[in-house]
Amino acid sequence: MSADELEWIEDGGLLSVPGWRAAATRSGVKPSGGYDLALFVADAPCRAAAVWTRNALAAAPVVLGRERLRRSRTVRSVAINAGNANALTGPRGFEDAQRMVERTELRCGGPALVLSTGIIGVPLPIDKVLDGIDTASERLSAACPEAYDAILTTDTCPKTTAVEVELPAAGAAPAHRATVGGVAKGSGMIHPNMATMLAVVATDAPVESTALDALLRDAVDASFHEITVDGDTSTNDAVLLLAREPRGQETPIGPGDPRLPALQAAITAVMERLARTIIEDGEGRTRTMELVVEGADGTTQAREIARSVATSSLVKTALAGGDPNWGRILAAAANAGVEIDGSELALDIQGVRVFGAHGPNEYDARALAQAFAAPVVAVHLVVGRGAGRARMWTTDLSSDYVRINSEYST
Amino acid sequence: MSADELEWIEDGGLLSVPGWRAAATRSGVKPSGGYDLALFVADAPCRAAAVWTRNALAAAPVVLGRERLRRSRTVRSVAINAGNANALTGPRGFEDAQRMVERTELRCGGPALVLSTGIIGVPLPIDKVLDGIDTASERLSAACPEAYDAILTTDTCPKTTAVEVELPAAGAAPAHRATVGGVAKGSGMIHPNMATMLAVVATDAPVESTALDALLRDAVDASFHEITVDGDTSTNDAVLLLAREPRGQETPIGPGDPRLPALQAAITAVMERLARTIIEDGEGRTRTMELVVEGADGTTQAREIARSVATSSLVKTALAGGDPNWGRILAAAANAGVEIDGSELALDIQGVRVFGAHGPNEYDARALAQAFAAPVVAVHLVVGRGAGRARMWTTDLSSDYVRINSEYST
Repeated sequence: MSADELEWIEDGGLLSVPGWRAAATRSGVKPSGGYDLALFVADAPCRAAAVWTRNALAAAPVVLGRERLRRSRTVRSVAINAGNANALTGPRGFEDAQRMVERTELRCGGPALVLSTGIIGVPLPIDKVLDGIDTASERLSAACPEAYDAILTTDTCPKTTAVEVELPAAGAAPAHRATVGGVAKGSGMIHPNMATMLAVVATDAPVESTALDALLRDAVDASFHEITVDGDTSTNDAVLLLAREPRGQETPIGPGDPRLPALQAAITAVMERLARTIIEDGEGRTRTMELVVEGADGTTQAREIARSVATSSLVKTALAGGDPNWGRILAAAANAGVEIDGSELALDIQGVRVFGAHGPNEYDARALAQAFAAPVVAVHLVVGRGAGRARMWTTDLSSDYVRINSEYST
Repeated sequence: MSADELEWIEDGGLLSVPGWRAAATRSGVKPSGGYDLALFVADAPCRAAAVWTRNALAAAPVVLGRERLRRSRTVRSVAINAGNANALTGPRGFEDAQRMVERTELRCGGPALVLSTGIIGVPLPIDKVLDGIDTASERLSAACPEAYDAILTTDTCPKTTAVEVELPAAGAAPAHRATVGGVAKGSGMIHPNMATMLAVVATDAPVESTALDALLRDAVDASFHEITVDGDTSTNDAVLLLAREPRGQETPIGPGDPRLPALQAAITAVMERLARTIIEDGEGRTRTMELVVEGADGTTQAREIARSVATSSLVKTALAGGDPNWGRILAAAANAGVEIDGSELALDIQGVRVFGAHGPNEYDARALAQAFAAPVVAVHLVVGRGAGRARMWTTDLSSDYVRINSEYST
């Protein structure tokens, strides 16, 4: 089943999944006074899988969430606060995260997870956050677009999407429709390994734990791990995947289940669209590059090369200027610390072959400049004869990016 | 002997070293019509050592230079052209570099090396360059400041320096003074492993090959490898160290020679000053960070952490904004892929302890903001109890950086 066969739900999001409610409030953590606290609550505990940041100084809510999922794989409610990441806040930060969990479980039902995003290194104004949880918990509703807004920081738009998918009959279970919906946040510090990016994706399909882990890992590899805004990873990144627990005699979807491929396609499609929305909202973004690297010795090598190009300041400023300075792309690729077979090297920009057969190619410079000025620029790089392939989306590095990030905490 | 005991030569440069002449011309390669070709010629062949770029797609002059030095360690003349890097130019690029070498040897005496800097991926206008070598070779002079200008690209000022150093008596050789002088180029793409940076340093002290290699390696480690502007390395980086050949019965300075420490101090001081001048001329730079990482498991780990901080767009934009958002420094350090001991973590900015003893510290926010607005901001990061230490200089990421690099090739 391809993503095209999925049925997208107009204005869909996490709340498109049956059984989910949400609420939002202005807890007063964001200096702007905007919505900054969201609760997402299922009507019964869900099976949970998560991918967390690999940053060596993971924030308190990440450390706590990891521990909690190690003990129990069920989650019913998720509290997310924006404006303060509760990261690098010492022992007090862990206490604060723990208090957020307890309050959320008290008000909304547990088990609960908490996620935080915003400025790092500043203690959480915990009383405001706890009051916010109290206030929001009285407003839980199946329709609450404010909850999608409440988790944002420098984002300029909410990130949500949902699909319906037809799952085939499996054993005693007849064919049935399932929904996959998600909400995400992120615009700066987006990078493979998911810097300062939060996403919560849920489905009403019942999934068994091992299958859920594999579904999440494959979907993240084809979505959030393929985007970069500024090469940094954050202390707080998290992607949660939550699936309804089976009811009664219902058989959950496990490894080898005929329903798995369709569900995988749906979850990947949702995460891919969330990731694309994040990259399109990249801080100061005016243009996007879709980079494909092929012919590397292996996937790891292809990813290293793609990452080196996608995080190069010189490539990203050239992209900002609409300047097809393709030599920078090759120089950045060659800067990855990976062997490159110069005799196989070929580079296409928007379908125009600019380098190949051992040297620069003849091309129409004006046509190339026009192609490079497109909102999305496709770059295809062949680095050898190997089977390694990687794809990566990256934003340009514009003056606006610098302005946004120079003034963040002031 | 410390660098303080060296005698700096006012307005010194490569031409301060006795026996060197230079010439410059406007070959027409730079669209601006400025000086773009320089010749540096010694009155006799010198002993040579070089550090070349590690970029996997090294430019034609780099590949050729590497080969030539492998065959013979002597160099008498160096031709440098700016405006076109002769990189990614295929087999024709190698022919062009070879023709530059031959013409330089014909006009100035060999052996010759050639270096190129400028736009990459565009064939060299070789006839202009060869004519330029002809023209310049007729003007060789012991005083030619234009030669320092002719090797620049986006640099806003020439980079030159020279010192005199007293070498002690050694065997039959009485104590004598020696001169070390150098010229460099670089402002964008500066990074450890020396992206788009050229430097030629010469001395009239006679040095034996093995000692010369060690002198160069140690000096580069303490200078050019400690600076970064934008994290990219280029196809063309090169640092040359050229020492006079011994005359008659003269004993060259070899390993263990009592003259070696003083000479090492002089060469390191010259390269350090050239590197500092490069960082101060970093593209769009308004502020510099001097970062020291201590307590890592080893030097490699310390360097990885320093590099992760020094190349972080979020750290560099905070520096541009004079914004002491120190959480970004810790997050970037933790993003290096190296274990960090959170319990030992300590961060000082301009001597103000902002993080330590397991959490954020109390400090005067206004005083910190003022300290962070200094032209050079000292950042000291302790990541554990190991012996690994690294230092790195980095520039801020300003709107001007983006402007300069968005418009480079258009």
